[in-house]
Amino acid sequence: MNNVEDNSRQSLDSGDVTTAKRSSISCDRELLAKGVGIVQRAVSARSTLPILQGVLIETSNQGLRLIGTDLELSIEAYVPVMSTGDFQVVLPAKYLTEIVRRLPAREVIITCDSENRVVTISSGKAIYEINSMEAREYPLFPEVPDIPWWKVSGKNLTDFVRQTVFCAATEETRPFLTGVFMSFEGDEVRLVSTDSFRLALRKSSFDNVNSPKQNKGLIIPARTLSEVARIVQGSDNEVEVYASENQIAFKCQETTIVSRLIEGQFPNYDRVIPQQYSTVITVKRVALQETVDRVAIMGKDEFGTIRLTTDNDLLTISANAPEVGKAQDQVTTVSMSGEPGEIALRSRYLMDILKAVDDDEVSLRLTGSLSPVVITQVGVESKDSGSFLYLIMPVTLNA
Amino acid sequence: MNNVEDNSRQSLDSGDVTTAKRSSISCDRELLAKGVGIVQRAVSARSTLPILQGVLIETSNQGLRLIGTDLELSIEAYVPVMSTGDFQVVLPAKYLTEIVRRLPAREVIITCDSENRVVTISSGKAIYEINSMEAREYPLFPEVPDIPWWKVSGKNLTDFVRQTVFCAATEETRPFLTGVFMSFEGDEVRLVSTDSFRLALRKSSFDNVNSPKQNKGLIIPARTLSEVARIVQGSDNEVEVYASENQIAFKCQETTIVSRLIEGQFPNYDRVIPQQYSTVITVKRVALQETVDRVAIMGKDEFGTIRLTTDNDLLTISANAPEVGKAQDQVTTVSMSGEPGEIALRSRYLMDILKAVDDDEVSLRLTGSLSPVVITQVGVESKDSGSFLYLIMPVTLNA
Repeated sequence: MNNVEDNSRQSLDSGDVTTAKRSSISCDRELLAKGVGIVQRAVSARSTLPILQGVLIETSNQGLRLIGTDLELSIEAYVPVMSTGDFQVVLPAKYLTEIVRRLPAREVIITCDSENRVVTISSGKAIYEINSMEAREYPLFPEVPDIPWWKVSGKNLTDFVRQTVFCAATEETRPFLTGVFMSFEGDEVRLVSTDSFRLALRKSSFDNVNSPKQNKGLIIPARTLSEVARIVQGSDNEVEVYASENQIAFKCQETTIVSRLIEGQFPNYDRVIPQQYSTVITVKRVALQETVDRVAIMGKDEFGTIRLTTDNDLLTISANAPEVGKAQDQVTTVSMSGEPGEIALRSRYLMDILKAVDDDEVSLRLTGSLSPVVITQVGVESKDSGSFLYLIMPVTLNA
Repeated sequence: MNNVEDNSRQSLDSGDVTTAKRSSISCDRELLAKGVGIVQRAVSARSTLPILQGVLIETSNQGLRLIGTDLELSIEAYVPVMSTGDFQVVLPAKYLTEIVRRLPAREVIITCDSENRVVTISSGKAIYEINSMEAREYPLFPEVPDIPWWKVSGKNLTDFVRQTVFCAATEETRPFLTGVFMSFEGDEVRLVSTDSFRLALRKSSFDNVNSPKQNKGLIIPARTLSEVARIVQGSDNEVEVYASENQIAFKCQETTIVSRLIEGQFPNYDRVIPQQYSTVITVKRVALQETVDRVAIMGKDEFGTIRLTTDNDLLTISANAPEVGKAQDQVTTVSMSGEPGEIALRSRYLMDILKAVDDDEVSLRLTGSLSPVVITQVGVESKDSGSFLYLIMPVTLNA
């Protein structure tokens, strides 16, 4: 039987020349698993270029350098090492990810033969031998500009992303709608996304904004922002945001994420937000969420279209699934101003928004049943104040 | 707008004749949701017969009677009611399940019009109106024999099922292998399943076995047993098992599950279990499980084929994924007797078994690399003792 141990003995026994050229490093299992877990997010298992199904692993002065990329999104992470070596290999991301999650001992030793062909990963009594792909074929990691445009805490950035990214389009027909528009005006940063049926606008002022005076804003792929949020979430560490003509980069401690920007002109979203509202009601967010969820079961079509009707201090939500039946429930409003209003909308869009918002109460602003409904913070006077604004286009139902 | 509330007022206001014929009951939200959750498991959303996509709901002396069926498996549950009514309706299982999970208030009122056409479910301010299907078209619930063959606690039955059902075949080519064979000999009950690549045998003696003297055993669909286990799991209540020529029934409190049996002759499984073993090793179950999981990453083919080699007090597990690489790890054995042994097998089968067993240690019994490996309790002397026995067919690997 030609097993791993035998092979490894053979090469160790096969003379000083070979032995001298083997190179190894040791590192911590948890840190290695964390690093691989981060960079493999940029790797697509379905890539037609085999080398892009791999993770680059190379020794460096800063530790073990890991890179994953699909050419659009590239992620680099450094793992501290307890000894130095000298190799550069590319291992299949799929296998590497599974392996590093299951290593039995705290210490991991990664050894490479003289020609960067076979990598041995050992931990406790477990030994893996993996064939490397040609490291010279691996794409170079993109350069990151010198000066960050914005410094923000991981937690704030995560909230910003979580509250906007879900409104971006998933269909590729208009690529610029699959991104989130980021703009800087003075110390105010805005994220805007829309799939043309709904819109999210999130804004806030920050201490550390240092963007060039004239910039028309950036369209960042929604997937990039989701991956950034996944990596920095819950972290108190500062994230540095860098941008150039066609790339954006996020640096957080030992991890750098670089992504292409989406070309094109983001729509003039300000135009679709109504200037005035005929009805403004304030409701408890969770109560509204539960009621919409309950009624939407009978929602028309695959989007669960429902109808909202305000009257005195009651918001009535109703739905009608043809042939099956109807549903209705009510929420008592916290406050209401203006005239009674009515609108039909896709319940999934409203649910997404109510889940993304953290406030205990939200305001719903209507302007007749043919204009979009706007969801804002409570007590916001003009459409330019408040830290978030969501908009949902109405659906025309046959009464 | 023609909403639910308007409709319901109309019918309530439309005169004494209509009002008198409406019938309603009230019940507890949690008990209703539990009952619907149980019976809808027998309903197939893909049934080509529309009536079989529904749940029958009818008033009875024992409470609200719910039935779901796909003609092979039928489940009946009774829900206690706080008032009596008189109706019989069939509501779409998909909608009903979603509705009862989301009702806002503790008390639920179910009202039916005089012709069993429209059902109103209301709770708090939520009102659903659902169109009923034709209840007279709903299949009759199968009759259950008078005397149970076996009485067993829900917990014991769940363990019995969990430890055997996963070895049944999922392919329909040989229907009798998609079931679990249940046989009674005196006070011993056996469950056996095999997909011809592996076999599970679980047996135990019980106080309450009362099966007819001559019975050749029953082949119960694996799905039926899984549903029974799901319903009675963790319950200390007694489950009564009834059988007839072509049906089996399980009664647990207010729930009755009736299933067709599978026709055919179950294979003579005793024949494939080796009479003697050349190697017997005992290992810690969890350590073996973790090691197999770790090495199987590099397992050959989609079944993650691995090799087990015993030598002195070590069990070596190795794998070889062509073109990708190799893996090896070792487990220290608790004890070993006989000669060194070796076998190649599908890691998934071994993992399934190690997950199903509760014992801290297990024995692996080999008879050369061309015979099946047998996994039993520790310290079992003959193949007829012990409460469980698993068998995995070997794979022939090119060395």
